[in-house]
Amino acid sequence: MKKIIALYPGTFDPITNGHLDIIERASSLFDRVIVTIALNSSKKPLFSEDERKEMILQELKKHKNVEVGAFRGLLVEYAKKKKASVIIRGLRAISDYEYEFQMALTNRKISPEVTTMFMMPNEKYTYLNSTLVKELAAFKGNIKCFVPKFVEKKLREKFKNRL
Amino acid sequence: MKKIIALYPGTFDPITNGHLDIIERASSLFDRVIVTIALNSSKKPLFSEDERKEMILQELKKHKNVEVGAFRGLLVEYAKKKKASVIIRGLRAISDYEYEFQMALTNRKISPEVTTMFMMPNEKYTYLNSTLVKELAAFKGNIKCFVPKFVEKKLREKFKNRL
Amino acid sequence: MKKIIALYPGTFDPITNGHLDIIERASSLFDRVIVTIALNSSKKPLFSEDERKEMILQELKKHKNVEVGAFRGLLVEYAKKKKASVIIRGLRAISDYEYEFQMALTNRKISPEVTTMFMMPNEKYTYLNSTLVKELAAFKGNIKCFVPKFVEKKLREKFKNRL
Amino acid sequence: MKKIIALYPGTFDPITNGHLDIIERASSLFDRVIVTIALNSSKKPLFSEDERKEMILQELKKHKNVEVGAFRGLLVEYAKKKKASVIIRGLRAISDYEYEFQMALTNRKISPEVTTMFMMPNEKYTYLNSTLVKELAAFKGNIKCFVPKFVEKKLREKFKNRL
Amino acid sequence: MKKIIALYPGTFDPITNGHLDIIERASSLFDRVIVTIALNSSKKPLFSEDERKEMILQELKKHKNVEVGAFRGLLVEYAKKKKASVIIRGLRAISDYEYEFQMALTNRKISPEVTTMFMMPNEKYTYLNSTLVKELAAFKGNIKCFVPKFVEKKLREKFKNRL
Amino acid sequence: MKKIIALYPGTFDPITNGHLDIIERASSLFDRVIVTIALNSSKKPLFSEDERKEMILQELKKHKNVEVGAFRGLLVEYAKKKKASVIIRGLRAISDYEYEFQMALTNRKISPEVTTMFMMPNEKYTYLNSTLVKELAAFKGNIKCFVPKFVEKKLREKFKNRL
Repeated sequence: MKKIIALYPGTFDPITNGHLDIIERASSLFDRVIVTIALNSSKKPLFSEDERKEMILQELKKHKNVEVGAFRGLLVEYAKKKKASVIIRGLRAISDYEYEFQMALTNRKISPEVTTMFMMPNEKYTYLNSTLVKELAAFKGNIKCFVPKFVEKKLREKFKNRL
Repeated sequence: MKKIIALYPGTFDPITNGHLDIIERASSLFDRVIVTIALNSSKKPLFSEDERKEMILQELKKHKNVEVGAFRGLLVEYAKKKKASVIIRGLRAISDYEYEFQMALTNRKISPEVTTMFMMPNEKYTYLNSTLVKELAAFKGNIKCFVPKFVEKKLREKFKNRL
Repeated sequence: MKKIIALYPGTFDPITNGHLDIIERASSLFDRVIVTIALNSSKKPLFSEDERKEMILQELKKHKNVEVGAFRGLLVEYAKKKKASVIIRGLRAISDYEYEFQMALTNRKISPEVTTMFMMPNEKYTYLNSTLVKELAAFKGNIKCFVPKFVEKKLREKFKNRL
Repeated sequence: MKKIIALYPGTFDPITNGHLDIIERASSLFDRVIVTIALNSSKKPLFSEDERKEMILQELKKHKNVEVGAFRGLLVEYAKKKKASVIIRGLRAISDYEYEFQMALTNRKISPEVTTMFMMPNEKYTYLNSTLVKELAAFKGNIKCFVPKFVEKKLREKFKNRL
Repeated sequence: MKKIIALYPGTFDPITNGHLDIIERASSLFDRVIVTIALNSSKKPLFSEDERKEMILQELKKHKNVEVGAFRGLLVEYAKKKKASVIIRGLRAISDYEYEFQMALTNRKISPEVTTMFMMPNEKYTYLNSTLVKELAAFKGNIKCFVPKFVEKKLREKFKNRL
Repeated sequence: MKKIIALYPGTFDPITNGHLDIIERASSLFDRVIVTIALNSSKKPLFSEDERKEMILQELKKHKNVEVGAFRGLLVEYAKKKKASVIIRGLRAISDYEYEFQMALTNRKISPEVTTMFMMPNEKYTYLNSTLVKELAAFKGNIKCFVPKFVEKKLREKFKNRL
């Protein structure tokens, strides 16, 4: 039997129910899953690296084979370091698809031993992303069905004094 | 460690280099891979079920954990019977994407314990499918870079007396 | 105040929960809604015109301003005859979108006084269509969450002696 | 007969012939149409809220049932305040479609009593947006066929001293 | 100076204003343009090869460097025979795009010396195709703005005794 | 015989193998090809106008009918000035397609005598763009298969002291 390590990279700013849905399934299929915060992004995140890690850990306590990581630089280098042979990506929409296609083919060219695999979230989350959740939270909209309780609380705190 | 069985369903009429690319990667990630011929298709296939099986087996001898199957009816029922928890699908293009999205969400609804995972073939095969190969073969076009040798020979035979 | 009549054309072979979701909303927005069976389709339908009408009526008893119609020929001619100024279409996916775009622009050119309006079904039905439901029913799959009870019964009957 | 109020939200920076085409049709189908300037946008607009309102009003004098509004925050809250049961959106292209799909499903989840309806502009305007018009105006390009006269004049003034 | 021969392949069943728009532009850019009827298509055409040729010739009299051809088999073989180094294709919509992408890459692989070039028709014709025109003609719809006069007459004759 | 001048506009920040693939083909089809650096872009480029020109010239020495230009303002004005009747664009992916469609139709409206033609790069470059190359270079990733040698060297220099 094989021991397969999978990375699940993203900005997780913050983690949503859509992410959790993917992680749960990945954790049942691979031996280890490393939820990996990408720190390169040019956009300034709402939550710090530590805050994002805290929220992910809070929600993932129950999954023993899931851990949290973070990287700067090239994802495939990080995968090599972690001996991961799978990169997991959630697929939502067409615009996603184009970008994901490009990244998967590029990563494959640079690092053929790593395979990108795509999973589709539950239909309830096909249109959900962290940006949407932050916009709703900023305007005091209802976000209960989009993020776990702990994340909702953190979002409320962030936007308490704004607007 | 988990023992994960993955189905790779398709019509495989005939198997192409794009399919082989996906199978090779799947075989390195999952404990068993069942290449599964879907027999429902309304379109009359060029090759019989046995011919298709023969071509797949010819090419997959070297992968010990890969076998060939066939089914009529619902894929998720077949997955249950085979104790498979993963359905593998190759993703090529937008039109694919729409259909695959629909099937993945439907199968998930009917059978939540099975996860559909998508893999992207090598860039060389992003535009390749069996229909294209058959069209080229029908007109005596060059198909060497699209299918393995044995399949090329079988295609030549099929179209020898046509046109 | 305006009195607006809206057509909701389709093959309805059979009507699904996705259609009902659209009809319910349309019935609250327009004065009259005519669910209109298109009889041109080149594909042979599973249900006869009368069976389709019966299933639609069964489900629409509660909506007083909804009725059932059927047409052969050009939709915009039928709209003119019925004094409808709106054509309602459900939008699901990209492939839909292309075709719908073409039809909406063509109908607008032929008949500028009729406006096509698109509605998106509940997220639960974004991937649902009648073809999928018939495939599931043909293989004795579970279709309870996709069609109303009466339609489920009719589908079961149709496929009782098949396979 | 129903009295239906429809919002038509957008940045309208500035209003174009494509917008006017949609508004004209909406005004013939609904009892009241509120052209609603969204003020949240992160991008700095070219025209102030007042300038945008002035341009819209200038063009909409002839439609008695059309008025102008503006909002900060969540659109569905504004809809509730205005007793609007319809949100109208123009659909142009694929990229639009994805974003619109997400917004429509989110708004529906937060506020099920409001229905998003999509209309396609005249073929002449399928590729037209305010950004394009501003780019053309910035380089002294011809914009006569894209915006009404009054808006053209305002754009010329804005860019008179630039470049 | 180069002497470039371009093929413009299609079924042309029948030729439409969208095709004519492309041909006119191609004729001004290349030294010779061969409008090439593809005879492989699995679908039974409405017009015979000769009828299609007649309609094309009727409309193209004025373009001295445009001629009509027809082929069975592989397009790139025909291109070689005709010493054509360009294949021209019109691009309309997403679904087109996928198919065209596949054909262009395949043809390039088989015959690297031939280049596929895409042109976009006038906005008025972005949604126009021969199938749509035939459907409209079958139901006696107005097709004046979609095809030239001579083609309109031929379509009327074809459908005179039908329906 | 016609003398056709073609523009190939882009930011070329820096030129990639995908661009070179297009230029080579264009140079064999048109009498003159002007690789044209667009200087309007709102994004700050990595390389200056001169650096970009130098890299392009370095790679294009062998093509006698290719030269380098640059413009601010409207592309169609530049085309007119250069007596170019063709604008060449590479097409990669769906998101490209939408934007390109818009630009081609707009340019056609403003300047009907200029024709936009699209070419698809080799399958190896369907997912390649300058942004991706810069990201890889920034993180010291392998870019040998994406850009020519001289450009690789220039990229290495730019990022030597960063990170």
